[in-house]
Amino acid sequence: MPNYLLRLAFVGTNFYGWQVQPNLRTVQGEIQKALSQILCEDVKVTGCCRTDSGVHALDYIANFKTQKDFPEEKLLKALNGILPKDVGVYAVKKVSEEFNARYSVKGKVYLYKIWNSEVRNPFLYPFSWQVKREINTEVLRNILKKFEGTHDFRALTKLEEERNTVINLEEVSLNVEYPLIEIRLKASHFLRYMVRRIVGTAVKISLGLYSEEVLEELLQGKGNSPYTAPPQGLHLEKVLL
Amino acid sequence: MPNYLLRLAFVGTNFYGWQVQPNLRTVQGEIQKALSQILCEDVKVTGCCRTDSGVHALDYIANFKTQKDFPEEKLLKALNGILPKDVGVYAVKKVSEEFNARYSVKGKVYLYKIWNSEVRNPFLYPFSWQVKREINTEVLRNILKKFEGTHDFRALTKLEEERNTVINLEEVSLNVEYPLIEIRLKASHFLRYMVRRIVGTAVKISLGLYSEEVLEELLQGKGNSPYTAPPQGLHLEKVLL
Repeated sequence: MPNYLLRLAFVGTNFYGWQVQPNLRTVQGEIQKALSQILCEDVKVTGCCRTDSGVHALDYIANFKTQKDFPEEKLLKALNGILPKDVGVYAVKKVSEEFNARYSVKGKVYLYKIWNSEVRNPFLYPFSWQVKREINTEVLRNILKKFEGTHDFRALTKLEEERNTVINLEEVSLNVEYPLIEIRLKASHFLRYMVRRIVGTAVKISLGLYSEEVLEELLQGKGNSPYTAPPQGLHLEKVLL
Repeated sequence: MPNYLLRLAFVGTNFYGWQVQPNLRTVQGEIQKALSQILCEDVKVTGCCRTDSGVHALDYIANFKTQKDFPEEKLLKALNGILPKDVGVYAVKKVSEEFNARYSVKGKVYLYKIWNSEVRNPFLYPFSWQVKREINTEVLRNILKKFEGTHDFRALTKLEEERNTVINLEEVSLNVEYPLIEIRLKASHFLRYMVRRIVGTAVKISLGLYSEEVLEELLQGKGNSPYTAPPQGLHLEKVLL
């Protein structure tokens, strides 16, 4: 049974995240609708991860199986023709039957954008967290570095199901083209709200609104992160195969 | 009477251009409404130029006179607080009474973005012209160069009023980070639709859809440009004072 990999991007603003939900506009829902129309059969698409409402993806991987053997190029054109303008499919590729977007990806890179200015940038507004008070970026860099490595991130997620909360956060980096601040995080997988809570906590501490002691406790799995950064700053930037 | 200069940016997608029109959402209309609310008096704002419906501005200059003497910083904050999110005011500055945004600007730089791919980039879609057929960028570069210099651009504008149509197009440059193609044009002033018609004509010729002879005639002020590139690719990038 042919198995197809899809590589896509979506602007999250008008989506209730990736995963299908009744009566809500979701990316999975739009793609399944388009594929069912093209292939004339019900199609179930598997995504590499959930995304929260309003979160963007510069790169996203999904796969689906179908009875039909459809040329890759033709499927790529048909999908981009049918899908709404806030989704774009970059690549369609036949893969082995074992490939599963959820279990086959090796890692992910998230990018979080902060616009650190009292003055609004209307182009970045839907794609960043506008923080009006000035952030000391060297302090922020030092705080972010503390999240790197293997920690129990249970205090920085929304615990939904029993799950291993120990994760090796391979890389946390900061790129500043002031007033634009970009934070990148790389790991094999992430927990729900984890990136937004790391960013929210780090920014609030660097603004002096929380003490650094809070951070030590959070990284020991104690307590609860005090702040979740808003979704529109978050971008799934790269999915590693 | 205090005279204030405003430096701003706006996402043109949901505006019917700069200039006030009855019952339509315009940038001038939104700014006048916000200023009247802040200053408690009717305010008439003068812009550096008209912009077409759907065209963006990374930089735009306007000015207005008022009875009130209002601190610049306070006005900047108040404006950004009241204005809708697709407009951002970068700077407010008191200027001499003679300053007039329409007549005092020395030049403008326009940026036109083309996404040259069959595959849609959903993030750039509202900010570019998606051309699916492959453009030979070296051919495009050569054609664009022919527009440089002083020409009668009457065949590349919409003639609306008697006006001097001879313009010195100081610079036309091409920057390619394929599939993104950026065209920049610099002049003291531009005619209506001029940039979009130059870009539209150059792209269509470089795709082989029009002969280069058409171009020679257009640059002699004969005939009419065959194609106007869509508004969403156009950005007023810099206003020169």
